[in-house]
Amino acid sequence: MENKEPVIYADQLLKHWQGHRSLTRKVIEAFPEKDLFSFSVGGMRPFGELAVEMLDMSHPGITGIATRTWGSYGDRAEKITGKEALLKAWDEATEHINQVWPTVPAGRMQERDVAFGQYEGPVYWTLFYFIDNEVHHRGQGYVYLRALGITPPPFWDRS
Amino acid sequence: MENKEPVIYADQLLKHWQGHRSLTRKVIEAFPEKDLFSFSVGGMRPFGELAVEMLDMSHPGITGIATRTWGSYGDRAEKITGKEALLKAWDEATEHINQVWPTVPAGRMQERDVAFGQYEGPVYWTLFYFIDNEVHHRGQGYVYLRALGITPPPFWDRS
Repeated sequence: MENKEPVIYADQLLKHWQGHRSLTRKVIEAFPEKDLFSFSVGGMRPFGELAVEMLDMSHPGITGIATRTWGSYGDRAEKITGKEALLKAWDEATEHINQVWPTVPAGRMQERDVAFGQYEGPVYWTLFYFIDNEVHHRGQGYVYLRALGITPPPFWDRS
Repeated sequence: MENKEPVIYADQLLKHWQGHRSLTRKVIEAFPEKDLFSFSVGGMRPFGELAVEMLDMSHPGITGIATRTWGSYGDRAEKITGKEALLKAWDEATEHINQVWPTVPAGRMQERDVAFGQYEGPVYWTLFYFIDNEVHHRGQGYVYLRALGITPPPFWDRS
């Protein structure tokens, strides 16, 4: 490491992440119920399934980051197949992340760990993977919405 | 600011950014020449145009971050319309970013500034916008590739 200048601090990253999650929630809302878990382009997964993947990473993921104890990725008790259930789980994850975030131990972001017992790297790298994966798949959701003739929410709106 | 725990340091973020840029380069390469600046889904911009947007942000953007002097966004002398020219400009931007990065002044990431004379916020926020915008549009490129019957490079491969 040549340059140890900090770029971003924990509370700024929480706000950044939740801003992205707020935009993703708007994208979920923009899908018609009938298309959310069925429509796709090019044989890819429907947006509802992509959003469930985001939840399966972020909800247990922040717990793993905070506690150093990783549950299984995606061991959701009930499969989410509808818009209302997805938005409810999304909001629960929002609360969960806000509650767990302040308990992340000091220095933890720079520790190495094996996320979900499978993905080894520094904790900040794991966290950035959660966020980037969400932005990546949400970008795909924008194409699905456009293909359905629906204008997606503006990318810059993280309110 | 409640929690001033640093998450990521400058050299780690450079590696993170260039890892994303390396993946985006692979996505550009994966497009057939004839489709790069013409194919799209749902009336969106073709991937070549999205990639030029990324360059128009990142290349002058890192200069603005380092020097506090912002040129105009997207004032490219020659319009890029082909794959070879795009990859060449991409590689030039890669070098440019690597060269300028170490000259970013200490503490700069937390300063407020008005990027391109238009977008006000902390510098880390501007930089994250460049990266997120690239991940967002690249995700759209993945859909275009799938719609063309082409398997995109794996999302996790940042080599």
